[in-house]
Amino acid sequence: MRSRLYLDHNATTPLRAEARDAMLAAMDQCGAASSIHGDGRGMRKRLEAARQQVAALVGVQGKNVVFCASATEANNMALTLGWQRDGKPVARRMAVSAVEHASVLNGTHASDPPVLLSVGAEGAVDIAHVKAVLARWRAEGTAGLVSVMLANNETGVIQPVAEIAALVHEAGGILHCDAAQAAGKIPFFLKDIGADLLTLSSHKIGGPLGAGALVLGNDALHLPHPLIRGGGQEKGMRAGTENVPAIAGFGAAAEAAQHCFGVFGGHVLALRSELELRLRASSPDLVVFGEGRERLPNTLNFAEPGMPAETALIALDLEGISVSSGSACSSGKVKVSHVLTAMGVTPALASCALRVSLGRETTFQEIEFFIAVWTRLRKNIHDRKQGRAA
Amino acid sequence: MRSRLYLDHNATTPLRAEARDAMLAAMDQCGAASSIHGDGRGMRKRLEAARQQVAALVGVQGKNVVFCASATEANNMALTLGWQRDGKPVARRMAVSAVEHASVLNGTHASDPPVLLSVGAEGAVDIAHVKAVLARWRAEGTAGLVSVMLANNETGVIQPVAEIAALVHEAGGILHCDAAQAAGKIPFFLKDIGADLLTLSSHKIGGPLGAGALVLGNDALHLPHPLIRGGGQEKGMRAGTENVPAIAGFGAAAEAAQHCFGVFGGHVLALRSELELRLRASSPDLVVFGEGRERLPNTLNFAEPGMPAETALIALDLEGISVSSGSACSSGKVKVSHVLTAMGVTPALASCALRVSLGRETTFQEIEFFIAVWTRLRKNIHDRKQGRAA
Repeated sequence: MRSRLYLDHNATTPLRAEARDAMLAAMDQCGAASSIHGDGRGMRKRLEAARQQVAALVGVQGKNVVFCASATEANNMALTLGWQRDGKPVARRMAVSAVEHASVLNGTHASDPPVLLSVGAEGAVDIAHVKAVLARWRAEGTAGLVSVMLANNETGVIQPVAEIAALVHEAGGILHCDAAQAAGKIPFFLKDIGADLLTLSSHKIGGPLGAGALVLGNDALHLPHPLIRGGGQEKGMRAGTENVPAIAGFGAAAEAAQHCFGVFGGHVLALRSELELRLRASSPDLVVFGEGRERLPNTLNFAEPGMPAETALIALDLEGISVSSGSACSSGKVKVSHVLTAMGVTPALASCALRVSLGRETTFQEIEFFIAVWTRLRKNIHDRKQGRAA
Repeated sequence: MRSRLYLDHNATTPLRAEARDAMLAAMDQCGAASSIHGDGRGMRKRLEAARQQVAALVGVQGKNVVFCASATEANNMALTLGWQRDGKPVARRMAVSAVEHASVLNGTHASDPPVLLSVGAEGAVDIAHVKAVLARWRAEGTAGLVSVMLANNETGVIQPVAEIAALVHEAGGILHCDAAQAAGKIPFFLKDIGADLLTLSSHKIGGPLGAGALVLGNDALHLPHPLIRGGGQEKGMRAGTENVPAIAGFGAAAEAAQHCFGVFGGHVLALRSELELRLRASSPDLVVFGEGRERLPNTLNFAEPGMPAETALIALDLEGISVSSGSACSSGKVKVSHVLTAMGVTPALASCALRVSLGRETTFQEIEFFIAVWTRLRKNIHDRKQGRAA
């Protein structure tokens, strides 16, 4: 039995039973997948089966999946200017949205920092800004790589990636899409969003830590100077003995996620809607970030003015509830979110932002418990303020 | 029961029971180690405990261990010219031995290829060449990073790292040592070999795939522009959600390995000595590579002239025996070893090189079985040649 209430599924997810089983089967077998003997071939078989499973999740062929150790690494791989199509460089400039994950925002290996694409108050990328940047590149006689995430990890806001991809392609560039947070939560195929490079994460979809993938939308794309080099694995695009147990778990999780999009989406959306309605009902001042946009069904990012996220996070933690304040995934410290800042949210309000992210195992009773604790906490803070004011 | 005979422990090792248990405990807990809530802190505790265990294996403090996903990644991290000591660059040149693993030989992220340090006929780095390179750098008024492995993965030859480190330090440079193959097989402390940067691999010591470490010999060393970037994990030197299950397994394996150096070394050395003696007795032409040097106790790299490794590997595989021919860890193809080539071995002889690498679970009966199969195979090839000649 779980003694705590975990509502931080956008940070990482519990391991699915299918993924655990697949990992154990691979962990109990010994062999390097690139060895040509029987033990190696046994591991190779598991690796290639997982490749098919991950490919199927986003509707591509296995040959287009490049495995690596994390979505951060996949984003770093994507964010170089070294990509070639049929042996020719495809991008000389780079632009990323201002609300990307840190591994995109700060993940580039190009010498110049990327152009930051602005977002509107609801967190969606400003199409006019994209057009302006593309027009400038065109005027300079060049093309670029544009990186826009499919869904934001903090707000859950879904970006108009297909629309942006069409503009980027028209301008001769390539589009990278970090789908680490969207995959497994909403169904989509790579071709529908028009991505040339797509990032996936295993541990965000119920797979294990230690596996990620960069999916290539185009057979002609190649990275001649890989990020992790010195070995011919993954068609020369990512060196190192393949982590078959983690990759096998990733594959099993991808297959399981694909089979339950309807159930997952319906379940977490019902819970999140209940949560959102009840919180709004209890507080007229409550702000829900990105509320006017389509969002991931499991994500709620909200602020109660005057109720600092840090205080709330610690108080909830003492009650055994795990949530996140903004994007706490890198430093272990609470800091004002760059996502909310880019959306024009004031630092005072942004410092009150809490992210609640639900999972497939979250129950209605747990949502009730969260609401009860949060309401009590809110009353305590309110009463204390009244006391000080009196 | 294992149905095959695995004699390829230098490629990867079976997972130790202690490592498997530690992984499972972490796999069944959910939380990102950088999250500040209780679930995150639980994972952080496992992460830091593993850091102490890995540090203890090489006699350093936990704070000097930087975890990453593989030894290949650790080698790539080491092989940049971006290292700083107290904020100042420490190396402008680079030299690596000609017998390094591909992730060092081809792993550099510097723009110029490194100088290749030659080795003698027994596979040990030529000290005179090291001195000449250091003298040249000194004459140019600069210093460099030198990378020499502790033990070679193909031949098992142990390099005079401490001697080289002293020369490098005298010349104001820093020494990187890839100890992926030596760790867990022979006892050593970082300070004894004088390394400034040391690479360790989890899956070579009975830990899981997916974890490696770069150990810093000096508190003042820092890499301001990490290889995998966009997140403050590992003191800003390696971004991405920490793979706690794999790291916990790595820690448990490091502790287990440390506790049984004596038993391991005595056991595999006895088996390898028996194997080497019997093979030599059965064949007067047999060549053992690096036989005049101190070697890892578990490794035997030999060639029977006229008996191609590819043929032997396939024939042994059909009998259920897994061995390696040279370093087959990257491409899945048999190619002439760069290590043997650097030692001056002719391509004809190098193409006959087989590597047998033993593990703690290898038995005397298995060695007997290997010898029986190999002897029969040798006779078959010999008879066939005689037949053709007649």
